[in-house]
Amino acid sequence: MGDITLIEDGRLVLIIWRGRRYLKRIAPDGSFHGKGGMLRYGDLIGKPYGIRTGDYDIFEPTIEDIVMYGLKRETQIVFPKESFYIAFRLSLKKGSRVLEVGTGSGANTFILSHAVGPDGRVVSYEQEERHFRNAKRNIERFCDWDNVELHNEEFTGFEGDAFDAAFIDVREPPTVLEKVRDAVKGSAPIGMILPTANQVSDVLKALEEGYGDTEVLEILIRKYKTVAERVVPNDRMIAHTGYLVFTRTL
Amino acid sequence: MGDITLIEDGRLVLIIWRGRRYLKRIAPDGSFHGKGGMLRYGDLIGKPYGIRTGDYDIFEPTIEDIVMYGLKRETQIVFPKESFYIAFRLSLKKGSRVLEVGTGSGANTFILSHAVGPDGRVVSYEQEERHFRNAKRNIERFCDWDNVELHNEEFTGFEGDAFDAAFIDVREPPTVLEKVRDAVKGSAPIGMILPTANQVSDVLKALEEGYGDTEVLEILIRKYKTVAERVVPNDRMIAHTGYLVFTRTL
Amino acid sequence: MGDITLIEDGRLVLIIWRGRRYLKRIAPDGSFHGKGGMLRYGDLIGKPYGIRTGDYDIFEPTIEDIVMYGLKRETQIVFPKESFYIAFRLSLKKGSRVLEVGTGSGANTFILSHAVGPDGRVVSYEQEERHFRNAKRNIERFCDWDNVELHNEEFTGFEGDAFDAAFIDVREPPTVLEKVRDAVKGSAPIGMILPTANQVSDVLKALEEGYGDTEVLEILIRKYKTVAERVVPNDRMIAHTGYLVFTRTL
Amino acid sequence: MGDITLIEDGRLVLIIWRGRRYLKRIAPDGSFHGKGGMLRYGDLIGKPYGIRTGDYDIFEPTIEDIVMYGLKRETQIVFPKESFYIAFRLSLKKGSRVLEVGTGSGANTFILSHAVGPDGRVVSYEQEERHFRNAKRNIERFCDWDNVELHNEEFTGFEGDAFDAAFIDVREPPTVLEKVRDAVKGSAPIGMILPTANQVSDVLKALEEGYGDTEVLEILIRKYKTVAERVVPNDRMIAHTGYLVFTRTL
Repeated sequence: MGDITLIEDGRLVLIIWRGRRYLKRIAPDGSFHGKGGMLRYGDLIGKPYGIRTGDYDIFEPTIEDIVMYGLKRETQIVFPKESFYIAFRLSLKKGSRVLEVGTGSGANTFILSHAVGPDGRVVSYEQEERHFRNAKRNIERFCDWDNVELHNEEFTGFEGDAFDAAFIDVREPPTVLEKVRDAVKGSAPIGMILPTANQVSDVLKALEEGYGDTEVLEILIRKYKTVAERVVPNDRMIAHTGYLVFTRTL
Repeated sequence: MGDITLIEDGRLVLIIWRGRRYLKRIAPDGSFHGKGGMLRYGDLIGKPYGIRTGDYDIFEPTIEDIVMYGLKRETQIVFPKESFYIAFRLSLKKGSRVLEVGTGSGANTFILSHAVGPDGRVVSYEQEERHFRNAKRNIERFCDWDNVELHNEEFTGFEGDAFDAAFIDVREPPTVLEKVRDAVKGSAPIGMILPTANQVSDVLKALEEGYGDTEVLEILIRKYKTVAERVVPNDRMIAHTGYLVFTRTL
Repeated sequence: MGDITLIEDGRLVLIIWRGRRYLKRIAPDGSFHGKGGMLRYGDLIGKPYGIRTGDYDIFEPTIEDIVMYGLKRETQIVFPKESFYIAFRLSLKKGSRVLEVGTGSGANTFILSHAVGPDGRVVSYEQEERHFRNAKRNIERFCDWDNVELHNEEFTGFEGDAFDAAFIDVREPPTVLEKVRDAVKGSAPIGMILPTANQVSDVLKALEEGYGDTEVLEILIRKYKTVAERVVPNDRMIAHTGYLVFTRTL
Repeated sequence: MGDITLIEDGRLVLIIWRGRRYLKRIAPDGSFHGKGGMLRYGDLIGKPYGIRTGDYDIFEPTIEDIVMYGLKRETQIVFPKESFYIAFRLSLKKGSRVLEVGTGSGANTFILSHAVGPDGRVVSYEQEERHFRNAKRNIERFCDWDNVELHNEEFTGFEGDAFDAAFIDVREPPTVLEKVRDAVKGSAPIGMILPTANQVSDVLKALEEGYGDTEVLEILIRKYKTVAERVVPNDRMIAHTGYLVFTRTL
């Protein structure tokens, strides 16, 4: 094995015990009390990530681990399977500027932050003060870069350079669509997530003029058991998180 | 609308005519001859992206457009729906170093290049000379950054700093798995794509020792028609591109 | 092998050549001209079903074969994967009486006929004369039993014994729903097939009073390649044929 | 509304309370104690099916209700969504004779019994005495017709008329396949259900000689919420019950 990243004070660890996952921050005096027994963080410090100690596997958390087991949720979040797709479908690159309307718990915001990197910018609006506070705390605690700007207000337009792309996650996207359109460049990809087919119909109506290349889709992930002798899908799966709509300004 | 990106000589355009997409590079004397009539590129230069001219819609190509309509394919490619997921599941960030075994046509390589950004590094191996040449040309023509290193050889290990993550797309992943493991950091995410369930079984066997948090999954995209009065899935969909396996070194 | 059914004059055969299927009726002087060469029906007469001759496999057609390769289609049909489910969800038994509004090409009618058997009854309405004529011909040519009653008229109610169940396949089910309700027993299952989510919404509104235990669902069939060494789903699948709605009168 | 079926002593009722379903047999002195309060069966006798009393909806049970809420399960059952398809794919008609190897709890047996009707015959084998006893009780309590013959023994072949079709639900179908083949007519459809992809591979190997028109498939049911203003799939769905294999003797 090549270089190793060492577990240090203040860093995050993902602890897995029989498939259950826990995201924790290392403090010299801290410890994890799980069904696999007590795990003193002091004993981990200085060791590499990717180790097994007793029944616990200790990994360096991935972006997905942080979203799923780190961020505090006060709203239905945009799940990584959708966020990963959204970030690329919006063609975000290092340095891109992206607008988000509807921060929620900041899960999608966190992924957008990673997609645009330290030189990029994510500007996100959330009307609900409680959600705004929670999202702010999530971003402050877990984001690598200082590239996210959160606003606790209704999105009514943006003064300044135009955005390269936008994402909308509010109850009635048609109400903000025109303002979002005014805030992005020509040809900019705009994404939306919608729980119901009725909302998809309403949004498609609103996109009839001034937008092009509209697409509606769902992403389904089917997971399998991991036993070599029994390759078989899990009994149950998540069947719906939302309809995604993508369009471009024309 | 805010700032506008202008169409210039040497830049790419996506031309859409009744749902059909064409990715072209602008040259002052060039033109596009499609069923919607002739389109002189000279008439587009200096205009913003995101315009309609006759029956043609002219957009700035996204990352996905380039993979789907720009890259020349000489192999079955890893499609964007999987690549987008892979890049984030490998927890790639701006500056990450990622190893790829099996360049193919370079479609996944192109996405990895975007995920790690100009300060990152993608090192990719392809044994087949014909595929290597094609991938090299695809990367040279379409990549924004000079962060991809292509090797026309079998992957037998890597001297130098360890990789943060790896992706394997070869016929028999178990044959290279240990060498990949030696080239990555502890706890590094390793991804694989496999066409058949039989291969999934073989890989799961090879992962029984020295790896943890293994997951097997498929990604399905279900697209819908875009008529407000008729919200309805497309009649047919792509039902299988590959099984994805993710694991981490332990 | 036990008893054998013999191929005889007037009987149907399913001829398969490299996965392509042809449903034919045997006549002593007839023959099949396919890519696998000429097949004289006279040579088959007296032989058992389930034989290979040259590149052709000769089987006794199943109910599904007849629907798929025998019935002449002049409309979008209800496919067997839905019809099989519908027939049982309507709890049809040998002897049941079932009402169908919207005969179409008679594909679903044909399955209902099998579900209720010779002592049962299928009463089906089709307004469009062209479709009615085609369905009538399909039923006469392929149904084993004389238990189907076709009406070339709008369904405006039924005089006589109440039906045990009903199925509706018309553009706007809410327009006939009350009349269907009047024609069935209390607690009778009623099924519907609807192409769009907008129609599902309209139907759910119409079912708010006087109906119970309503369910909306889709049936998806995912087929696999049949090579032992390569267990893998087909590349493409049928992604949508219709939303099914089931309810019961209350 | 037309004729009505009346609730009588000894008949089954389906009681639904806020989406929860209970299948009960009426006895004059009995009663149902649920969260919606006490329901005296004596008060229901003589009333029609399809009534609402308090928070309870009272329906006549369908075939599916009986399988799902009546049969006692001591094994993983073949679910109705598969059984409905199997019965028709085996081309069962009124009067057909079908062989089943692996009775389990008798759920699929019960559906086969309905498919062949009173003049047909279902012959089913179950080695495990405990499962045999349970299946026998299920069939005796719930089957309309006396057309099922259960054997508490290994299937080693059958003396008598050949079967029209067969269904296999045992751990290792290749071990009984040849014996089943000897017991059915030429061209007879044979179905199997298999939990894992590894088993599918083994079965495909066993079917390479002497069988034709083999098909492997999965059936997925996606259910929706039933609110007109919010047409949206349920959050979770059953993702796997088994791979179905269909073949025909050649």
